[in-house]
Amino acid sequence: MAIEINKEFLEHIEELIISGDDQALLSVLAEEHPADIAEIIDQLNLKNATYLFKLLDSETTAEALMEIDDDDREKILKNLSAEEIAEEIDELDTDDAADIIAELPVERKEEVLSEIEDDDHAKDIVELLQYDEGTAGSLMAKELVKVKETWKVPTCVSKIRTQAQEVTRVHSIYVVDKHDVLIGRLSLKDLLVSSDDLYISDIYIPKLDTVNVKDDVEDVVRIMQKYDLEAIPVVDDKNHLLGRITIDDVVDIIKEEAEKDYQMAAGITEDVEADDSIFEKTKARLPWLILGLLGGLAAASIMGGFEDALHSFPELFYFTPLIAAMAGNVGVQSSAIVVQGLANDNIKGSMMNRLVKEIGLSLVNGIILAALIFLFGTILHYQIDISITIAISLIIVIIIASLIGTFVPLILDKKGIDPAVATGPFITTSNDIFGIFIFFYIAKLILGF
Amino acid sequence: MAIEINKEFLEHIEELIISGDDQALLSVLAEEHPADIAEIIDQLNLKNATYLFKLLDSETTAEALMEIDDDDREKILKNLSAEEIAEEIDELDTDDAADIIAELPVERKEEVLSEIEDDDHAKDIVELLQYDEGTAGSLMAKELVKVKETWKVPTCVSKIRTQAQEVTRVHSIYVVDKHDVLIGRLSLKDLLVSSDDLYISDIYIPKLDTVNVKDDVEDVVRIMQKYDLEAIPVVDDKNHLLGRITIDDVVDIIKEEAEKDYQMAAGITEDVEADDSIFEKTKARLPWLILGLLGGLAAASIMGGFEDALHSFPELFYFTPLIAAMAGNVGVQSSAIVVQGLANDNIKGSMMNRLVKEIGLSLVNGIILAALIFLFGTILHYQIDISITIAISLIIVIIIASLIGTFVPLILDKKGIDPAVATGPFITTSNDIFGIFIFFYIAKLILGF
Repeated sequence: MAIEINKEFLEHIEELIISGDDQALLSVLAEEHPADIAEIIDQLNLKNATYLFKLLDSETTAEALMEIDDDDREKILKNLSAEEIAEEIDELDTDDAADIIAELPVERKEEVLSEIEDDDHAKDIVELLQYDEGTAGSLMAKELVKVKETWKVPTCVSKIRTQAQEVTRVHSIYVVDKHDVLIGRLSLKDLLVSSDDLYISDIYIPKLDTVNVKDDVEDVVRIMQKYDLEAIPVVDDKNHLLGRITIDDVVDIIKEEAEKDYQMAAGITEDVEADDSIFEKTKARLPWLILGLLGGLAAASIMGGFEDALHSFPELFYFTPLIAAMAGNVGVQSSAIVVQGLANDNIKGSMMNRLVKEIGLSLVNGIILAALIFLFGTILHYQIDISITIAISLIIVIIIASLIGTFVPLILDKKGIDPAVATGPFITTSNDIFGIFIFFYIAKLILGF
Repeated sequence: MAIEINKEFLEHIEELIISGDDQALLSVLAEEHPADIAEIIDQLNLKNATYLFKLLDSETTAEALMEIDDDDREKILKNLSAEEIAEEIDELDTDDAADIIAELPVERKEEVLSEIEDDDHAKDIVELLQYDEGTAGSLMAKELVKVKETWKVPTCVSKIRTQAQEVTRVHSIYVVDKHDVLIGRLSLKDLLVSSDDLYISDIYIPKLDTVNVKDDVEDVVRIMQKYDLEAIPVVDDKNHLLGRITIDDVVDIIKEEAEKDYQMAAGITEDVEADDSIFEKTKARLPWLILGLLGGLAAASIMGGFEDALHSFPELFYFTPLIAAMAGNVGVQSSAIVVQGLANDNIKGSMMNRLVKEIGLSLVNGIILAALIFLFGTILHYQIDISITIAISLIIVIIIASLIGTFVPLILDKKGIDPAVATGPFITTSNDIFGIFIFFYIAKLILGF
C-alpha cells in the first residue's frame, strides 16, 4: 500500500529490469505486499515478469503467484524449472499448492511433486489433488491446529505453539479423540481464559458445524455464510478430521459466482476481463449474439407471415420493436428475481402461489403501461382499434413474458441446470419471438386482417 | 443445522405457539443457531414471530435479529418496548447495535439508548451512530483487543484474557503507544510462541494495514479483499485506534454490491426479493419498463418517418426487431465487461487503446453475423441489395452499440456516478433507438427511397 502502482512506477521498474539493476529492484520492491507484486507482474511483459519473478524470494512470489491472472500464471510457470516451481510450492499452504499443481500439464505434475523438499507437504498435496473439483475436499487445506481431549491446558498451549508455526491463521483449535474423530473445538480465546489445571475435555465446545469432504462447494459457502463462520472443519463419513476451509476461499467463491451470474445475464460465457484479447472476447460473446440473430430471423419470418396487414395497419410494424423490448425487459426482470432468490435460498411457498402473484404483478404493470400507450395513441390520433390492439397485446405479452421469466429458471433449477443460463439473451430472445407472435395474432383477432 | 426448516416443522412451531406450550417450544428450539431462528421467524406471521421473539432469551434473539429480513425486523421492533430492545442491544457488538438503533424512528432512539445497562456500550454506540453511512466508521465495531507496547508477555496475556471476553473474534491484537496511537499488531499466534521475558515492543509487528475512519466502504472492501485480511483497524487522521472492521461485514457488502449490480442490469431498482409484495415489486420494476416503453415509442415514430419504404422494402420492417435486439445485446455485453472491470479495479490502459480494441472486436463479431444474415438472405431469395443493406447496417450498428456500451459506463464512472445504472434497460433502450435509426438511415442511402 506504500507505493501507488501507476504508469511512472511501472516504467521505472521496467527500466531497472532492462538495466539489470537487481539491487535497486529489490530495495524498491522489498516492502511491497505479494498482492501488489502480483499487480505489477500482471502489467509487465512475460520476459520482464519472469525476470522479476526469479529475482524475488519465493516467500513473496509464492503468495503473489496465487493473485496473478490465470493466463499470466500459466505462462510464467512454463518459464520456470520443476525445481523452481517446487520452491514456490514449499511456501504455499496445501490448498493453494494443490491448486497450482492441478493447473500444470500432467507430465510436469509428477516432476514438481518429486522436487518438493518437505515430504509431508507433498503427501498432503497429493491427497488434496484426488478430490473432485466442486467438492469441499477440493477447497480445504490440510493446515490446522488440532489437540487431543486428554491433554491438559499447558500441554495443549505448548503443542499449539508448535503447530501454529505451520498455520497462517489459527481461527479455531479442533479437538479430537484418540481415534482422530472430531469431537468439538476450542477457541483460542477460551484457551487463554482457562486455568492451567483443566483438561481439554473439560473446556472444549462439543457443538461444531462440519462439512463432509464430498459436500458441494455451494453448500459449504451457504453454511459458512449463514452461520457467519470464518473456518469450518472437513470430515469424512466416519467424522475423521481431514482438513478445514477458511473464509478467504469462500469470499473468492462468492465473488466468482456473482460475476458468473452477472456475465451470464449479460450474455457472456464465463470469465472474460476487460483486457482480454479480441479472440477470447469473441469466443465468449459471439455464441449469444448468434442466438440473438436466430431469434431476430425467427421474428422476421413471423412478421413476413403477416404481410397482409402491412398496407392497412402499418402501425403494427412500427410497434413491434416496442412489444419485443417490453417482453424482453419483463422477462429479464422476472428471471433475475428468481435466479437471485434461488442463489440465496429464499424461494419459499408453492408454485401455484407464485403463479397467482406473478400474474397479479404483470396485470398491474401491464395495465399502467397499456394506459400510457393508449394515451400516446390518442395524442397522435391513431385509429382507436389499433390503440386498443396494441394496449391489449401489451398486457397479455407482459403476463406471458413474466411467466416465462419466472418459471423457466425454476424448472431449470429443478432439473439441476444452473438457472442463471435462463437470464439475459436466452430469455430476451425467446420472449422477443413469443411477444411478436402473440402481438400479431391478437392484432389479427381484433382487426381481422 | 440439526433440524431442517420445512413446512411440517413450521406448522409444528405454529401449533406450539397457538397452544402456548412454551416449555415444548424452548426445548425444540434450544439447540438452534440464531441464523436458523431468524429463518423460522421470517416465515411466521407477525403475531407468532413476536411471541417467539419474546419467549426466547435475548442472547439468541439478538443474533437472530441481525439475520431477519429488514421489513420483518422493523415490524417486530415496533412490537417491543424500549426496554426490550435495549436488552437485545446489550447482547450485540457495537457495530450491529448501532445498525439496529439507526433503523429506529428518531424518538425511540433516545429512549432505547437510555435503557441500555452498560454505559460504555451505550457511549460506543452513540459514537458509531455519528459516522456517515458509506464510511469505514459506519462499518466498524468498537470491540477489539488492544495492548500497550510497554507491557511484558505475561501481563499482556492476562490483559488479553479480560479483553477477549468482550470480543467475539479476536483476530489480531493491536499494539498502541502511550498516546493510544496505533503502532502495529501482535498476532495471537506470535504471542503463543513467545517466551515470557519479552516486552511487547520486542515482538510486535510494526507493519500494519489501516483504514481511515472517513474512508469509503468500497475502498475498505477492496483493500481487505486484495490483501486477504480478516480484520482491519480503523484510525483517525492522527492514527489513534478507533475500532476495527471484520471480514464478515465485508462478505455481506460484497454480496449486496453484487446483487445491486445484478438487479440494475436486469432493470430492477435495488432490493427486491422473490417474496416481496406486488406493490414493492411494481415500484422497483415499473420505472424501467416505462423507460423501455418510451424507447419503443421513439422507435415507432422513427419507423413511421420512413413509411415511404413500407411498400417497396417491407423486409426492412421485418428486420427491425433483429437490428434492435443485436444493438441491445452487444451494448449489454460491452457495458457488463466495463462495469465489472471497474468494480474489480482492473481497467488499465488508455481510452484510445480501448476504442481501437472495441472497434476491432465489433468488426470481427459484426462481419461474422453479417455473413450469416447474407447467407440467410440468399437462401430465402431476398433482393441482393436488401441483404447487403441489412448486413452492412448490422456491422455498423454493432460497432456503435459496443462503443456506447463501453464508453457510457466509463464516462459515468469518471463523473462519479455508479456505472451499473448504464447496464440493462438503459443501454438496451438507447441502443434500440440508435440502432433502428442508423438501420433506416443506411437503408435510405443504399436503397435510395
